[in-house]
Amino acid sequence: MARQERAIRTRNAVLEAAATVFAEHGYESATIMQILDRAQVTKGALYFHFTSKEDLARGVLEHAVTEPPPEQPVKVQSFIDMGLLLAHRLPREPLLRGAARIAADQSAQRFFGQPWQDWVKLTAQQLTAAKEQGEVLPYVDPERTAQTMVAAFTGTQLMSQASTQMSDLEERVSLLYDLVLPSIAVPGVLGRLDTSPERGARLYAEYRVAVEARSAGG
Amino acid sequence: MARQERAIRTRNAVLEAAATVFAEHGYESATIMQILDRAQVTKGALYFHFTSKEDLARGVLEHAVTEPPPEQPVKVQSFIDMGLLLAHRLPREPLLRGAARIAADQSAQRFFGQPWQDWVKLTAQQLTAAKEQGEVLPYVDPERTAQTMVAAFTGTQLMSQASTQMSDLEERVSLLYDLVLPSIAVPGVLGRLDTSPERGARLYAEYRVAVEARSAGG
Repeated sequence: MARQERAIRTRNAVLEAAATVFAEHGYESATIMQILDRAQVTKGALYFHFTSKEDLARGVLEHAVTEPPPEQPVKVQSFIDMGLLLAHRLPREPLLRGAARIAADQSAQRFFGQPWQDWVKLTAQQLTAAKEQGEVLPYVDPERTAQTMVAAFTGTQLMSQASTQMSDLEERVSLLYDLVLPSIAVPGVLGRLDTSPERGARLYAEYRVAVEARSAGG
Repeated sequence: MARQERAIRTRNAVLEAAATVFAEHGYESATIMQILDRAQVTKGALYFHFTSKEDLARGVLEHAVTEPPPEQPVKVQSFIDMGLLLAHRLPREPLLRGAARIAADQSAQRFFGQPWQDWVKLTAQQLTAAKEQGEVLPYVDPERTAQTMVAAFTGTQLMSQASTQMSDLEERVSLLYDLVLPSIAVPGVLGRLDTSPERGARLYAEYRVAVEARSAGG
């Protein structure tokens, strides 16, 4: 294994360990010792990549906003897909769990709420594209609707965490979309949308195939 | 001042101080010393009413679910009023702020998410009453819709806290209702609903008058 490749692996292992510890204990209580323990690397290796716990949190938060799912001909479907894909990945990926926990942690003041604004921006872009295609009701304000949706998603994730450790997140997010879509999409589009809780898993499988094809090609 | 009345005042002062400290620092970081400092009572006085920090948090959480606003002839309006009144009171009342912070704090594991279930129950009752009056669309499930609404409210409150210290909470909650109501209320009811951000303040003024009339009568 080349030295550079090994360095990348170590960095990823440390980051994933940090995210797992943050997800379990929160930012304040997490210690570098716990992260070292879980990553199974030396203190020197960790500090080669990250200067502090704060730096580790920043590294985890860089992964908070995931790649959008494949574009759909109906843009409102892309807006739904982003939420359903995230609802599928969140319970399964330590980096996302860690990032979500830090983002909603009022004790970690400098990080509290930070990634939400990026999600709002992405969501507003999707709703704007949908509006340009005439899929969205005329009185819908993409920016304000995006704010409301990201907030509602965040609360849904917290409640799902509290009641089932996020195992029912896909179902709850699907219900959330069912509740809001009649106020967003025009009737002709509404009937063609897929909000089923299983859709996130299908999108994820497609996404994995695309990622592997890309790395095989590179 | 009678001894009993003095005891009640002390208890309330301690509880409000605890809630303020919890709202500022979170449950984990909060100390009894900070609470004593803010309440301006002796250690003996505090421990006469509460045995521990945990006991104080429980006391604060007892105030997390507020009295529902006055009943309206249109039951969907009562459902809206509960959210708008809470959105008005939350930024203004230390007990509610403290309770909200503890409820959303994953580090305070034994309390995390606790009051949400009571809110869901109350909300589901209102939606059931509305359904019995024929105000709600036939496919609406009161329990699941209540779950989604309480989750969405919680996320809205967190995002409002992160961006404006909750000063825009009433406006955000009003938008949330505008977004979901077309999927909940039948068209004939929809046009008669008031979701304006200023409604919470009006409801609160009425509520204060009712409370004062009650205590004058007692």
